Amino acid sequence: MTTAPTATELTGRMLIAGVPVFGAGERIRAIDPGTGAELEPAYGYGGDAEVERACAAAEEAYEAYRATTFEQRATFLETIADNIEAVGAVLSERAHRESGLPLARTTGERGRTTGQLRLFAQVVREGSFTEARIDPALPDRAPAPRADIRQRAIPLGPVAVFGASNFPLAFSVAGGDTASALAAGCPVVVKAHDAHPGTCELVARAISDAVASCGLPAGTFSLLYGTGPGLGTALVSDPRIQAVGFTGSRVAGLSICAAAQRRPQPIPVYAEMSSINPVFLLPGALTARAAELGGEFVGSLTTGSGQFCTNPGLVIAVDGPELGAFLDGAAEAVTATSPTPMLTPGIARAYEAGVDRLASADGVQVLARGRESDAPQSCRAALLVTDAAAFLTGGLDEEVFGSCSVVIRCRDAEQVRSLAAGLDGQLTATVHATEADLAEAGALLPVLERKAGRILFNGWPTGVEVGHAMVHGGPFPSTSDSRTTSVGSRAIERFLRPVAYQDVPAALLPEVLADGNPAGIWRRVDGELGKH
Amino acid sequence: MTTAPTATELTGRMLIAGVPVFGAGERIRAIDPGTGAELEPAYGYGGDAEVERACAAAEEAYEAYRATTFEQRATFLETIADNIEAVGAVLSERAHRESGLPLARTTGERGRTTGQLRLFAQVVREGSFTEARIDPALPDRAPAPRADIRQRAIPLGPVAVFGASNFPLAFSVAGGDTASALAAGCPVVVKAHDAHPGTCELVARAISDAVASCGLPAGTFSLLYGTGPGLGTALVSDPRIQAVGFTGSRVAGLSICAAAQRRPQPIPVYAEMSSINPVFLLPGALTARAAELGGEFVGSLTTGSGQFCTNPGLVIAVDGPELGAFLDGAAEAVTATSPTPMLTPGIARAYEAGVDRLASADGVQVLARGRESDAPQSCRAALLVTDAAAFLTGGLDEEVFGSCSVVIRCRDAEQVRSLAAGLDGQLTATVHATEADLAEAGALLPVLERKAGRILFNGWPTGVEVGHAMVHGGPFPSTSDSRTTSVGSRAIERFLRPVAYQDVPAALLPEVLADGNPAGIWRRVDGELGKH
Repeated sequence: MTTAPTATELTGRMLIAGVPVFGAGERIRAIDPGTGAELEPAYGYGGDAEVERACAAAEEAYEAYRATTFEQRATFLETIADNIEAVGAVLSERAHRESGLPLARTTGERGRTTGQLRLFAQVVREGSFTEARIDPALPDRAPAPRADIRQRAIPLGPVAVFGASNFPLAFSVAGGDTASALAAGCPVVVKAHDAHPGTCELVARAISDAVASCGLPAGTFSLLYGTGPGLGTALVSDPRIQAVGFTGSRVAGLSICAAAQRRPQPIPVYAEMSSINPVFLLPGALTARAAELGGEFVGSLTTGSGQFCTNPGLVIAVDGPELGAFLDGAAEAVTATSPTPMLTPGIARAYEAGVDRLASADGVQVLARGRESDAPQSCRAALLVTDAAAFLTGGLDEEVFGSCSVVIRCRDAEQVRSLAAGLDGQLTATVHATEADLAEAGALLPVLERKAGRILFNGWPTGVEVGHAMVHGGPFPSTSDSRTTSVGSRAIERFLRPVAYQDVPAALLPEVLADGNPAGIWRRVDGELGKH
Repeated sequence: MTTAPTATELTGRMLIAGVPVFGAGERIRAIDPGTGAELEPAYGYGGDAEVERACAAAEEAYEAYRATTFEQRATFLETIADNIEAVGAVLSERAHRESGLPLARTTGERGRTTGQLRLFAQVVREGSFTEARIDPALPDRAPAPRADIRQRAIPLGPVAVFGASNFPLAFSVAGGDTASALAAGCPVVVKAHDAHPGTCELVARAISDAVASCGLPAGTFSLLYGTGPGLGTALVSDPRIQAVGFTGSRVAGLSICAAAQRRPQPIPVYAEMSSINPVFLLPGALTARAAELGGEFVGSLTTGSGQFCTNPGLVIAVDGPELGAFLDGAAEAVTATSPTPMLTPGIARAYEAGVDRLASADGVQVLARGRESDAPQSCRAALLVTDAAAFLTGGLDEEVFGSCSVVIRCRDAEQVRSLAAGLDGQLTATVHATEADLAEAGALLPVLERKAGRILFNGWPTGVEVGHAMVHGGPFPSTSDSRTTSVGSRAIERFLRPVAYQDVPAALLPEVLADGNPAGIWRRVDGELGKH
């Protein structure tokens, strides 16, 4: 019998339905990207037995967990947020050491994570996510009477979440996928990311403690460590898992999608994968402030070593002296950048290989690189330039994860639009424009709407606001399901499905569908929205 | 130059972006199920060239069509409904002759089809389908200001629709999939069903005439004739098609899903496939009115030769004298049924083979068959009975499309619940219960919520109301996407995806997101619903 660890203690163990379990498989340790040193403790991989145990517990928890009231569920989400804050500086420090991201960033990200949990608590209390609808009976309707038909959303079932390397808090164990799935009423089984196992453990304990103190079934949450192809595939394939949230590479995302499709019962996968986030610089904006734009652009490009899904990896503009001024400004800023650590050695290698691949392509010129470094796995920013013809020969639109961007010189506005129309699906598309550019921006906008989940003007795509109107999603291959968002309150919709209740006796109706609207929520009665 | 056909004339031609085209491929004719006679005219199959032409036209139409105002789009849907009514009795008669369904049924179905189009006109005018949201800028927020972020839904793009054989009007050319996709702002390319080519042509002309008279781009709608594996697969694989609506068999549905997944860019498929729609008879209900329930059940089972996706193919109850009385009543009613024509010779063959398969399974007994007939492709109702043990050995839960149902005798209420928990996903689940059954019904309800899209009490699942609260969908394999409905106003959501607009200049914002809410629709501002 071991004593329960304190909130800040690292033990190397998984947490399966509240029970700490040290995996019997391979042992891994986090690596400090700044020094290359291994960090204690060792984490033992789990396998099929741990997947079975976590999924069985999640399935067992499902009925009781989904039956919680809005208030109970909201309090649970808030308790998780409180517990994460209670871990204190240890958490942001561990996330900083494991990821190499600046401490200020991991501290800010912790705030974003708890803010997100509290946003979903509000969403649950507000109740609209249940999509309650009532079409009252029409017993006298001719030629046939109408039955009483009511509708609400129910949670899909246990959800598997795969956290991202680049947001060790906000897109990881208690990140957007977990928060929205728990808000929907789904138990969650998280596969920890190997790049930040200690951060995962601390956050998992915060969740698990909240499960216990809120009196919820233990299987509401589990954390597993293991390989993607092994434990990860077993998790996606488990018949009790009913949806998957994933943020990461295109290869891993597509492999999860394929596993989900191979199941006897295919399930939805919300995979947020690759995006190069095109930025369009229109002539008026370039005329007004080309050099400043160059500097700002490099700021967006190099923050967090460019390890953002919304990093601006492509800049498109009509060639001319103004674009030249932008390139001069950007090149100067890139040249001045210091190397910064990347999340993992593998990501650093893939980054350099990606830059080399782009640099050696026909018609591509390396305009600037950041300073060199002897530090392990560091990122040297890279600015490349090419023209539309070279870009269209292909291969230049694959994401290079890191501070690398390609600028495309175009002949004219028509070529800009035609390049835009040929792009793959993206998370974001950015337009820099002034009043003088309105007509051209207006012509570009419908093209961009078909390409991206978020269109922004006169800003930079990095930094995703967590709110009600945010869309962090987009057409394939930026995500596997363009109809959804993984950030913001609508993320909850991914884990729900509608059920209709026809002539169900009042005593058996869920509260959100009861006569007199005791839940006090927005409902659609005969199609009319109201608190009725 | 041919003269344009009148609204009621049959020509055997496809309609591609308003242009009649006689396909150069194989020629087919409809078959009158009542007589087995071929019906004129011949319809020529199209192939890749016609898919290319229809999809190019749909893509070309997309921008202009989606830019229509709510009023224009609603008027278009209403004009289609008016045009369908203007075809007059010719339409329901042709549908009756091609399907073998009673004239009263096809006449009623025409009303349902036009009612559905008008419902979607209302949904479009009401505007909530755009999911408009605004999170206003917070320029003074610390530590970082918030940008102005707005969100609306945009149509996915051109949609392919595969109509069903069993609803030649309401689930075919101008059925729920087409109506909801057009309402969403998506051009539609329909593959006609071979079982009712003439009905398809008449309805397609009604739509095409509405496209022209409403001044919409011709490519907004096309109708193609061709094989499923050939033209159908080419249509699903066309890069311009962005979603698919399908109603039909599991084999065909899964093959469309697979084709959609094989694309370089996978797309959503809304396939409504197979369901056996379990009916649970609780003890109180059996005690109160076993024999009447038997008669009503057979009424639901045999309507339209049982060719409904919601046909009650499975009855589950605790064994005893009351169940005996139900079976006696049902057997008597089945024995008295006259054979009725089935939609196609293939469906009739598959029905008999399915009944034979069930009847020859271990532990299954044929309790009653309907009267015999010499008529071609007719359906003899079949009532079979077995026990839970035999059912659980497997194979008895596959849909037999037609008037065939299996009754399962259970040992006790626990076995009823355990059978329910083991079922595949269903479109519907029905419970017959009285006040005395409330506790047992309450225990069953959460199990059924996970199994079905619609749960109904003290009624029969056939007959799907078209309204705001309806769910015609359900867990796999009843559909390929349990998060959606193919009937009712929420069907429109299948063809939309969200786009966020960050700091987009007022002059470029879509009307639904403009300041001051000029569209007068419900919007969520900072998460608060209102007409603001």
